Amino acid sequence: MEQPLIEARDARGVVTLTMNRAASFNALGEEMLGALQAALARIAGDESVRVVVLAAAGKAFCAGHNLKEMIATPELAYYQRLFAQCSRMMLAIQELPVPVIARVQGIATAAGCQLVAQCDLAVASTEARFAVSGVNYGLFCATPSVPLLRNVPPKQAMEMLVTGEFISAQQAQERGLVNHAVAPDQVDAEIERLVKSILAKPRVALAMGKELFYRQREMGIAAAYQLAAQTMAANMMEGCALEGVTAFTEKRKPNWAQSTG
Amino acid sequence: MEQPLIEARDARGVVTLTMNRAASFNALGEEMLGALQAALARIAGDESVRVVVLAAAGKAFCAGHNLKEMIATPELAYYQRLFAQCSRMMLAIQELPVPVIARVQGIATAAGCQLVAQCDLAVASTEARFAVSGVNYGLFCATPSVPLLRNVPPKQAMEMLVTGEFISAQQAQERGLVNHAVAPDQVDAEIERLVKSILAKPRVALAMGKELFYRQREMGIAAAYQLAAQTMAANMMEGCALEGVTAFTEKRKPNWAQSTG
Amino acid sequence: MEQPLIEARDARGVVTLTMNRAASFNALGEEMLGALQAALARIAGDESVRVVVLAAAGKAFCAGHNLKEMIATPELAYYQRLFAQCSRMMLAIQELPVPVIARVQGIATAAGCQLVAQCDLAVASTEARFAVSGVNYGLFCATPSVPLLRNVPPKQAMEMLVTGEFISAQQAQERGLVNHAVAPDQVDAEIERLVKSILAKPRVALAMGKELFYRQREMGIAAAYQLAAQTMAANMMEGCALEGVTAFTEKRKPNWAQSTG
Repeated sequence: MEQPLIEARDARGVVTLTMNRAASFNALGEEMLGALQAALARIAGDESVRVVVLAAAGKAFCAGHNLKEMIATPELAYYQRLFAQCSRMMLAIQELPVPVIARVQGIATAAGCQLVAQCDLAVASTEARFAVSGVNYGLFCATPSVPLLRNVPPKQAMEMLVTGEFISAQQAQERGLVNHAVAPDQVDAEIERLVKSILAKPRVALAMGKELFYRQREMGIAAAYQLAAQTMAANMMEGCALEGVTAFTEKRKPNWAQSTG
Repeated sequence: MEQPLIEARDARGVVTLTMNRAASFNALGEEMLGALQAALARIAGDESVRVVVLAAAGKAFCAGHNLKEMIATPELAYYQRLFAQCSRMMLAIQELPVPVIARVQGIATAAGCQLVAQCDLAVASTEARFAVSGVNYGLFCATPSVPLLRNVPPKQAMEMLVTGEFISAQQAQERGLVNHAVAPDQVDAEIERLVKSILAKPRVALAMGKELFYRQREMGIAAAYQLAAQTMAANMMEGCALEGVTAFTEKRKPNWAQSTG
Repeated sequence: MEQPLIEARDARGVVTLTMNRAASFNALGEEMLGALQAALARIAGDESVRVVVLAAAGKAFCAGHNLKEMIATPELAYYQRLFAQCSRMMLAIQELPVPVIARVQGIATAAGCQLVAQCDLAVASTEARFAVSGVNYGLFCATPSVPLLRNVPPKQAMEMLVTGEFISAQQAQERGLVNHAVAPDQVDAEIERLVKSILAKPRVALAMGKELFYRQREMGIAAAYQLAAQTMAANMMEGCALEGVTAFTEKRKPNWAQSTG
């Protein structure tokens, strides 16, 4: 059988992870969750990676958990393990030192919608649609509500969660769930625009910044400023920033090592 | 004298609470606050209730506190009791195990605007308008700012609070204060659409989900995921979810008890 | 040499602080930071001030830190002091007992964009543009991310931070970074509209309200309601509220002392 997750890497350090279970709408079964977790762990330890694109094969982006697998073991301990495994994978996206961009070409439901919300950035085709639809079969999308509520205004998040209804890509953009909703044939160009911009920045600055972004978000503003000031001072002591700032003041391009930009 | 709050219940478990002091713009005097608190307490203990619609008689939705009552007892201890009583009622909306939908047919000011913000969902007539207007008479809308700031972007919330100015229903929708702003003669149809969707879901899943939604919101993301994973595992062990997921995989409708859906 | 910061005050208690280093795009060098900190400290202790407008001379609003100054002392301890100094000044805006309105006539980048985000309210010319562009020279805008993330939806904030790209004034308004984006020749009228509305409210009510707004924001909702209820009760015991509420119930204008309104 084919791999559940295809990993492609280009010379620039762009890793594309493609969920490859089109027939099951790329459901997040244990096999897929394991493959994603393993890929994220590898990437976390590989300094040559600069950005990750999370994509999907077939018509759907991701339909959430594998329901057939779930009902086969109707035991509390199993469900606790399963949802903990899924949450660990979601958090690994946030903990990755490089930006992760969701490439949403089709529907994203339940934990599939969560996956979009959890990524740092997201580009959607106007053919994509989004729902946290577990409640339709009696299972409130509790774990998806965690990143959803951190992206979408609360009354709009609540409506999605209690009705299970779809929103369009355009609505997802207006509500903050995705950065851009573009025509299907423009999705790759939009992703490439973001990728190129990220590649032009030093990896270390993005890594320090991404970590700070999510840590300070959970703090009161005074503590957030303290941590951010420390982070920024440390960032200034990196060669890339000293060179970058110097170049800027001399009105020339920074002379960064190839691995950086 | 008529009841301050009319409670109507239909065979489906839909409770409509109608504030019934049109002449005083449904001000949240002690009598009205007491009636709302008592109704919410009854509903909290009644498993036959599936959803609450909070409505209002007359032209205004709710004009906030009863100012005549307030100036009659100019004592700190009285005001502390009054605002604590009001806050307790507002929190009771959040703590209710069923969704609460505000039906906003007219102006909602000060604690009336707070009431809209505090509900889980809100549908407004395009004739409704919203303001946190206490500052106009020297009383900053402090308690209304609590749910307002949790729904509306902060600079927009701050502008409303320091200017006391009205925003339209359309603006309220764009800013996240209400879910939908529709023509006056479409308000009931829009509410019914939400109600029908909620009734089609199992009560227990919505109850677990609503509690989780507000609890995880106050947590860091790692703790939020832990609680959400536990909630989802517990939800899966409920009969409604096992049947619902099974039915979904068998491409049939779930066979839920009537009280559930 | 001219002052880095021009302070103008009118008879109504409106203080306009104008950053006055047009040639360096009003960079937040140590001199400018010191001047802003000193002005904010003076204003904090002056009960005759009612509102602050933070403006800028020349074409740019503020281009962030003074990069030439920064590279002259490439030492960690220096950068720690510098970013701590800047963060202290930003927090002083939040701690000021009167509303602070940013008047953004031109580009606001890095710590200049942070300054806009940190103000209570902001009016932008449609010619203004906004970026957190430090990452372009290898320095992630860590401290700017603190108020940015508290104003702008997270995926949009992240995109700005990792790409360093500009957004328009219109986009800044849609995303919550500014209250209003208006034609260049309408900026002063829009500011004056906000100023007049603020001047018509009692100073003490705004001061209690602003402090509460930012404090309750960092609390869970139950604690937030407790603090807000205490604040509102204390506000009611102020003469301005007792008179204001009484006047409202008597359908007359409140008779507030001139310093209040």
